[in-house]
Amino acid sequence: MVAAGAPGQAREGRLAIIAGKGFLPVYLADAARGAGEDPFIIQLKDEADHRFDGFDHVSLGVGDLSGIEKSFRERSIRRVVMSGGVARRPEWRDIHPTFKTLIKLPSVVRTLLSAGDDAVLQMVIKLIEAMGCEVLGAHDIAPGLLAKVGPLGQVSPGGDDLRDIERGVEAANALGNLDIGQGAVSVGGRVVALEGVEGTDRMMQRVAELRAEGRISTRRKGVLVKLCKLHQDMRADLPTIGPSTVEHAVAAGLAGIAVEAGRALVLEEAKLIKAADAHGIFVCGIDQALPSRGL
Amino acid sequence: MVAAGAPGQAREGRLAIIAGKGFLPVYLADAARGAGEDPFIIQLKDEADHRFDGFDHVSLGVGDLSGIEKSFRERSIRRVVMSGGVARRPEWRDIHPTFKTLIKLPSVVRTLLSAGDDAVLQMVIKLIEAMGCEVLGAHDIAPGLLAKVGPLGQVSPGGDDLRDIERGVEAANALGNLDIGQGAVSVGGRVVALEGVEGTDRMMQRVAELRAEGRISTRRKGVLVKLCKLHQDMRADLPTIGPSTVEHAVAAGLAGIAVEAGRALVLEEAKLIKAADAHGIFVCGIDQALPSRGL
Repeated sequence: MVAAGAPGQAREGRLAIIAGKGFLPVYLADAARGAGEDPFIIQLKDEADHRFDGFDHVSLGVGDLSGIEKSFRERSIRRVVMSGGVARRPEWRDIHPTFKTLIKLPSVVRTLLSAGDDAVLQMVIKLIEAMGCEVLGAHDIAPGLLAKVGPLGQVSPGGDDLRDIERGVEAANALGNLDIGQGAVSVGGRVVALEGVEGTDRMMQRVAELRAEGRISTRRKGVLVKLCKLHQDMRADLPTIGPSTVEHAVAAGLAGIAVEAGRALVLEEAKLIKAADAHGIFVCGIDQALPSRGL
Repeated sequence: MVAAGAPGQAREGRLAIIAGKGFLPVYLADAARGAGEDPFIIQLKDEADHRFDGFDHVSLGVGDLSGIEKSFRERSIRRVVMSGGVARRPEWRDIHPTFKTLIKLPSVVRTLLSAGDDAVLQMVIKLIEAMGCEVLGAHDIAPGLLAKVGPLGQVSPGGDDLRDIERGVEAANALGNLDIGQGAVSVGGRVVALEGVEGTDRMMQRVAELRAEGRISTRRKGVLVKLCKLHQDMRADLPTIGPSTVEHAVAAGLAGIAVEAGRALVLEEAKLIKAADAHGIFVCGIDQALPSRGL
């Protein structure tokens, strides 16, 4: 699991952070600076929703491979971290290929426009590697972000919750095997919602709505489970939770959140734990390899 | 697949139709009357959304086992068809057990409140059988409702659509194996939405929204696939499509709809075909056992 470029290994060349939606890119930029790096930030247009004023940064479209390569070359970038969500796929007219990618453009475009998230990320990793860079995972820059086994806050899952975790794990694994999604919600032993393109937060809003309409029992709480996909590349798109995930779980009336220990990221952990404890919900890391899930 | 009580076999005792949401119960009531039956209708409170004024009918809650048994006894009901959707699970206070069910009440209540749809339906079938009735499928009353293999209207799926059908079949089977849902939407070879408790129509609305937001390609159309669950009991909850499914598919920008031939119901077929042809979308029955799906 330790990628080249992990802490403790020699660093070669400057680090770039490709920043999509959410708080993770900001956290990584700060973590990298704290470790003595001078990270260069590529804010993805229409995706990145935080500012990087204190950092060397540019704003480029998701499909602007030519712009990305140019900015990397100018700054001697050798290591790259992709971070944050990318909700939109680029449109055909937004794709600016590099000379190297031009020759394989049809397959690049086909993948970008229509393949599953995993296939797209694998392609992007290969394109960046073709620019002479090494692609790292967020956990290589900030290993403390990885979820640990067991409850994070004061609340632990109870018997009904463990059953919901089991059912959610089954469902999330089935989705992950098909490269569809990472999340599922189980209430009272019954899987009620599955995550597609809409993402975790919107799935949770749906659960809140269905609950308000009486289509999900109000007597059973339920659990959100987020897992890695079976063949997940640790360098991209790890399941991520943060304080807003807790807020959505509370609004959906859930008892708690379970994520995959060692393969999911926990953002703003202190704030998240405070919110979870305040609302009396659990947040725990589970280990699929252990019979008890480590709980 | 021919259940006892199928057309051509001797009919014993009067027929009751338990009517949930949608058009299917109305269709079945008319079909039964057309076949010389005098069907008794139980309109499920808060679920049935059509009137049965011309029929002997009562309105009862989903959990009112005692009321259902009494009405069956008074009318010498011996055959029962369950039809239409049941969106809400009964609350604890709405369950009125019969004497026979009282003894196994804890397990009945637990199943009603929290099990998957399949488990609930199996239990309801057993409860009705315990009242001395035989449970039939909608197709036993109206065999013409079952989807046939191949395109229903003038439009046939093209090459991209066949790929989306394959991906949708994979996803729907994965859901069905876990007793979660029956439907999935694949766009450009990528599964973008999976059906949970919200049902097919709301899943399609979600696809329309995600499309409008640019989170699903507007250049690829996509397909809705609805399949039976692996161990689906043909007597309950068969996947159903009707003219409104076509309307939702059009709003979601899909190229068409694929359902499982012989194990899905097509309501108001003439109206559905007219709508599909008018919008240039396909509706087809597929056979999972055939390499080409029968297309």
